Amino acid sequence: MLIAGDKYTGIWDNNGEIYIIDQRVLPFEFSIIELNNITILIDSIKDMALRGAPLIGVAGAYGVYRILKDCENLAVYESYFEKIINELKSARPTAVNLVWAVDEVCEGIKNIQNLKDKINKALALAREIREFEIDRCKQIGIHGLEIIKNIYKKTKKPVNILTHCNAGWLATVDYGTATAPIYAARDAGIPVFVYVDVTGPRNQGSKLTSYELLNENIPHKIIADNAGGLLMMKKMVDLVIVGSDRTTMNGDVCNKIGTYLKALAAFDNDVPFYVALPSSTIDSSLNSGSEIVIEERDENEVLFADGLLNGKIESVRIAPIGSSACNFGFDITPAKYVTELITERGICKSTYSGITGLFPEFFKKMK
Amino acid sequence: MLIAGDKYTGIWDNNGEIYIIDQRVLPFEFSIIELNNITILIDSIKDMALRGAPLIGVAGAYGVYRILKDCENLAVYESYFEKIINELKSARPTAVNLVWAVDEVCEGIKNIQNLKDKINKALALAREIREFEIDRCKQIGIHGLEIIKNIYKKTKKPVNILTHCNAGWLATVDYGTATAPIYAARDAGIPVFVYVDVTGPRNQGSKLTSYELLNENIPHKIIADNAGGLLMMKKMVDLVIVGSDRTTMNGDVCNKIGTYLKALAAFDNDVPFYVALPSSTIDSSLNSGSEIVIEERDENEVLFADGLLNGKIESVRIAPIGSSACNFGFDITPAKYVTELITERGICKSTYSGITGLFPEFFKKMK
Repeated sequence: MLIAGDKYTGIWDNNGEIYIIDQRVLPFEFSIIELNNITILIDSIKDMALRGAPLIGVAGAYGVYRILKDCENLAVYESYFEKIINELKSARPTAVNLVWAVDEVCEGIKNIQNLKDKINKALALAREIREFEIDRCKQIGIHGLEIIKNIYKKTKKPVNILTHCNAGWLATVDYGTATAPIYAARDAGIPVFVYVDVTGPRNQGSKLTSYELLNENIPHKIIADNAGGLLMMKKMVDLVIVGSDRTTMNGDVCNKIGTYLKALAAFDNDVPFYVALPSSTIDSSLNSGSEIVIEERDENEVLFADGLLNGKIESVRIAPIGSSACNFGFDITPAKYVTELITERGICKSTYSGITGLFPEFFKKMK
Repeated sequence: MLIAGDKYTGIWDNNGEIYIIDQRVLPFEFSIIELNNITILIDSIKDMALRGAPLIGVAGAYGVYRILKDCENLAVYESYFEKIINELKSARPTAVNLVWAVDEVCEGIKNIQNLKDKINKALALAREIREFEIDRCKQIGIHGLEIIKNIYKKTKKPVNILTHCNAGWLATVDYGTATAPIYAARDAGIPVFVYVDVTGPRNQGSKLTSYELLNENIPHKIIADNAGGLLMMKKMVDLVIVGSDRTTMNGDVCNKIGTYLKALAAFDNDVPFYVALPSSTIDSSLNSGSEIVIEERDENEVLFADGLLNGKIESVRIAPIGSSACNFGFDITPAKYVTELITERGICKSTYSGITGLFPEFFKKMK
């Protein structure tokens, strides 16, 4: 998608050199990071220079390639590979894509004997996964467009969409998940208006989603995380679309902390609540959201706010010295509050049968 | 209550000179403002140097005195009084206490002919209203204590309380509304733990409530506004107590934006949701919350975050240049999500009959 008129994606490689946009300094600075060793790559995931479940997955796939490329010979590979792969897989605990993509590449190279061939295969697989993710998001946009189109047909007014956090192209590779239907609607000539939750503590909504929308010329307003309930009560929101970090087989959705509160408000006000997700975020090993261990992050994310001051990014303390914080990164939205899932294969109920109806392969994988 | 070991209240006078604590610079700076003319007083309400419905009410009462004191003679008074009173009454639209307290003092002085006597009477009435508010909060604490005591009797564990925004002594005059039962529980030897919502966009939770609790040595943690739902789902919260800016006769509660979302989460997880309020915040002229016009505030409150940087209070922009925001200050929690109201006369259902049962005088006032 566009940044200042130029086309970018969330991650790309140039002859095997991997690049990302540093999301920690957006929207105030535009900085490209070259992931030229595995430590930088893992740290970029941990520090959230790159974030978003689909993007973390693709970065994980590239990570396997990066590890192999750094091995001088097969002996080094054998002594080192498994340990570092486990470190890579645990860089962020919630994104199921990370483990999935890393395993996918590892599986693809395991029977190759020659190190050079392993490297080439890993790069090819990482690129393939990247292309898959792009295509999945594109398909999500195509399917989600129908929902927005149907609302527009009835109201003949700009369709007001509320979204939480950043499930945009910066969180994926291109198009985004929650934003894909929004971009597709704009391309189809349907007027849309987006309310963007600030999404504390890290404010990825006000920083990243609004930045994406600004650069794509989509009309939007930023709202406090506290505001969505009132807006829905005031009938200012036609539908909610959010992303998902992990969806369990019963349709529970683990997504950025606060998603659950918006789902409750949507339910209470008869506002449709959609979750847009590529199937790579579905965790077929889990029956329900209660099985997910929620990532706890550094309390300073809550105690400080980052932003622009006199042309520099600064971090101000928003709490008295001496107070501490509790910082869970995600919450669980029970399936009953999810109107439907928007996936790359179409729209389905957020239930076991809805999911396996579109994705019968998960049926086989269930434990 | 205590600040660094010294006893303070939210507003006080010394021989008729009125003082407040500047809440815009807390918790980082402690600054006392002398409200020595009506412009400063009105601006202090508008700019939220003082905030919280009960405190705004007392400031309004003192405001009438301040206006009278500034009149050189009865002629000046007659030409100027009504206009400036209306300006005072509209300094903040949501707090019903403001209009109530100003009217109360105006009513009390209207039949007094002599300007000096008017001044003296206004000061006496303002002090009386201040004392009433202190006593009301104290009584709220006494009644609310019983709720906490009953939970503690069952669990024998520290009682975990979630609160939103600042309904503490800084928002009233002393004790606070939502915090009064917490302080009363502590004084009664019951261990309590408080989860404090940051409360964006202005972060009065992380800045003011945590500051109060720190100074009173009450164990607490600050949480993102997005986190309360998950905490309730994880059974980390025994009860929610919030304040109210305006309560309508059917029991709907207008309070700081985001209160409604916490009420929905409490309801969904069977967590009791209490609203602590002095009867001065009950608006007997309104049947339901839908009649309240919600105050819209400056978008910069959403687009910037204030905090401490290198010993100075700075404001950082948390959104890209070019994005705008929508900033409603309050929301409505429908009565059905309120477990009970804690008032100075006791605890009641948040219904018309509950309210008029404790406050029969409102029955007569109903339109």
